[in-house]
Amino acid sequence: MKNIIVAQSGGPTTAINASLVGVIKGALSSGGYDKVFGSLYGISGVLKEEFIQLENLSDEELHRIYSTPSSYLGSCRYKMPEIHEDSSIYEKIFEILNKYEVSAFFYIGGNDSMDTISKLAEYGSSIGSDIRFAGVPKTIDNDLVATDHTPGYGSAAKFIVASMLEFAHDTSVYKTPTVTLIEIMGRNAGWLTAAAALARNEYSDIPQLIYLPEVPFSTDNFIKDVKEVLKSTNNVVVAISEGLQDADGNYLSATKAACDKFGHAQLSGVGKILENLVKEELGVKCRSVEINILQRCAAHMASAEDLEESELLGEKAVEYAREGKTGYMTTIVRTSNEPYEYKIELANLDGIANQVKQVPKEWINPSGNDVTSEMLDYVRPLVCGEVDIEYKDGVPVYADISHLTGAV
Amino acid sequence: MKNIIVAQSGGPTTAINASLVGVIKGALSSGGYDKVFGSLYGISGVLKEEFIQLENLSDEELHRIYSTPSSYLGSCRYKMPEIHEDSSIYEKIFEILNKYEVSAFFYIGGNDSMDTISKLAEYGSSIGSDIRFAGVPKTIDNDLVATDHTPGYGSAAKFIVASMLEFAHDTSVYKTPTVTLIEIMGRNAGWLTAAAALARNEYSDIPQLIYLPEVPFSTDNFIKDVKEVLKSTNNVVVAISEGLQDADGNYLSATKAACDKFGHAQLSGVGKILENLVKEELGVKCRSVEINILQRCAAHMASAEDLEESELLGEKAVEYAREGKTGYMTTIVRTSNEPYEYKIELANLDGIANQVKQVPKEWINPSGNDVTSEMLDYVRPLVCGEVDIEYKDGVPVYADISHLTGAV
Repeated sequence: MKNIIVAQSGGPTTAINASLVGVIKGALSSGGYDKVFGSLYGISGVLKEEFIQLENLSDEELHRIYSTPSSYLGSCRYKMPEIHEDSSIYEKIFEILNKYEVSAFFYIGGNDSMDTISKLAEYGSSIGSDIRFAGVPKTIDNDLVATDHTPGYGSAAKFIVASMLEFAHDTSVYKTPTVTLIEIMGRNAGWLTAAAALARNEYSDIPQLIYLPEVPFSTDNFIKDVKEVLKSTNNVVVAISEGLQDADGNYLSATKAACDKFGHAQLSGVGKILENLVKEELGVKCRSVEINILQRCAAHMASAEDLEESELLGEKAVEYAREGKTGYMTTIVRTSNEPYEYKIELANLDGIANQVKQVPKEWINPSGNDVTSEMLDYVRPLVCGEVDIEYKDGVPVYADISHLTGAV
Repeated sequence: MKNIIVAQSGGPTTAINASLVGVIKGALSSGGYDKVFGSLYGISGVLKEEFIQLENLSDEELHRIYSTPSSYLGSCRYKMPEIHEDSSIYEKIFEILNKYEVSAFFYIGGNDSMDTISKLAEYGSSIGSDIRFAGVPKTIDNDLVATDHTPGYGSAAKFIVASMLEFAHDTSVYKTPTVTLIEIMGRNAGWLTAAAALARNEYSDIPQLIYLPEVPFSTDNFIKDVKEVLKSTNNVVVAISEGLQDADGNYLSATKAACDKFGHAQLSGVGKILENLVKEELGVKCRSVEINILQRCAAHMASAEDLEESELLGEKAVEYAREGKTGYMTTIVRTSNEPYEYKIELANLDGIANQVKQVPKEWINPSGNDVTSEMLDYVRPLVCGEVDIEYKDGVPVYADISHLTGAV
């Protein structure tokens, strides 16, 4: 009996279940594996032997999981200890993997998850185990190195672009000067915020200004920029990254701008802080809008390209494991921008986990308040294509997650 | 020559352009009118004679406008003076209407817009004018009296329900106790917040708690309620209306809970205030999410039912004007819940403008933290049906609004 375990970890995205379906399909179609165990709540589900079996799902069920947001198997934020510090947890995991006759383990996740899979592979090698370990990338932030982009990024970007265009309509209706600040996710990398530029079209140049964490943020320059744009339009919309930092590397959102009624420090988001600044400095109507968690879970606006690639990354991970490879992450290598073409390759996990890929400085304009056409060429193909979502009584139909919610 | 003017007013919604298309189609198909003037920025465009002509739009252009969010003609928040206080503005408007040979004027909007149209009709009667004046209702808040529901409500509700379901997936992935507060629009009426209950299904009871402005809000009871739900699940999601008020009728959001770094009072939203309260009182992880302006402009998630009705309300307004009626608003009269059926009727504008329709007390549970099945039966048909949106390069294609944005 040769079985596999698949698990998901880290923050939710719209594409992480497409990779799950890729792993399941890859395992079943290869004929090389028998059972597919889904570990609930990431690696912590392995330790507790909380498994559900996935090899008997129908095509219809698989398709529904494919287009369902967030992690079908649940998630965790579990940091594995260094092997030399505490090997007992590794021993326990391998004991369980052997008990369930597991010959390959697939972990779909971001930075921390790649760290986990890397350590498991390392421990496996050290004891001469032939269990294969593979990572499948995932993060809306697109900040993983070694891959052209990450699953989840394209869908989040698509939702942001569509929203930004809808904001352009919403904010154009009055003749009074107004500034609208749209706060977008990405603590250390501005990929998502940069994507907002795709909303510009022949009748709208919104967002007129874009600020990424890659550029030290100056409130003086920001106010000057907004003032300048207000000279030619009543309707200024600005895309700002939640991770903006000053020249000393301090997050704007950590300036404790406000205190609550008990006098306790209260962290404000960047949007709220800059909203108050605009009102103070320019005396103009200003509203800040946080797109918030919708950008990572609005599966009704997923990018078809993103989900297809995510599935393929899962399938290929299984294929490589069958070939005997271990300790890798599947990656996307872009071979052409126009037409957009790519292939799936492998990257060794060493060094992936603790790096952050930022928007290249050359893709940001010299003033640090916009992105260049290279950035647009990069992201444009990733938001393409719409996913057919089933609706019932006007509401999207997603996969049943009662194994997580505990509903009877 | 018999012409009409149509204008839009008040806050943006997803359905207001469907009513505009209804008016245009109604005017052209009736054969009774020649030119269709669209006044830019509501009634203020009439005063400035800022008109665009709408009678030559192609079917394709009309269809695109139909599914475009926000006001294609722009909007205003212009309060007409009482006639006896200042009749000069009325004289000027009628002068312009006569100059453009206008025989009917259609105003699509909410409470304030109905006030405007009512005054114009009244003034018209007083001077013996035969120009017809009609209002077409619109507001996501659904708080207009005399109509079963308002255009824009169904689409906003649909976006809220879809988002709430996606939040249910997003928040279910971790095993740690978490409270998520979803702040929903509706300053004086809880219709939109109540709609969130439609997200519940066979695997999720999210949102477990719902608080509307119709019920005086007690923070003590709220904390007790959340504590109680946390006994049976790790994942509590609460739908809260932005307009929550205490027993004395004070808005929670007006309590000036926070002060900024300059020491100035800073109004926090209800979500942020209750987020801090939950953290203080229960020591549990809590996040607040404002759905914000997306709920009123996310046309990619419009309700087909809503747009169809909105168009029909516009068409019928023209039909009634041709019959010689004036000083009315078209309304929806529901004749059956299952199957859902309705007819379009008229309501006299007197008294509509200054009333607010709230969720009936009988549709709220005795504890004041949920809605009853009657509320669900009411809103369910209104979110039904999806609208085909054209996409180009992964981005929705909406109507060109360069007449508002000033783009060349």
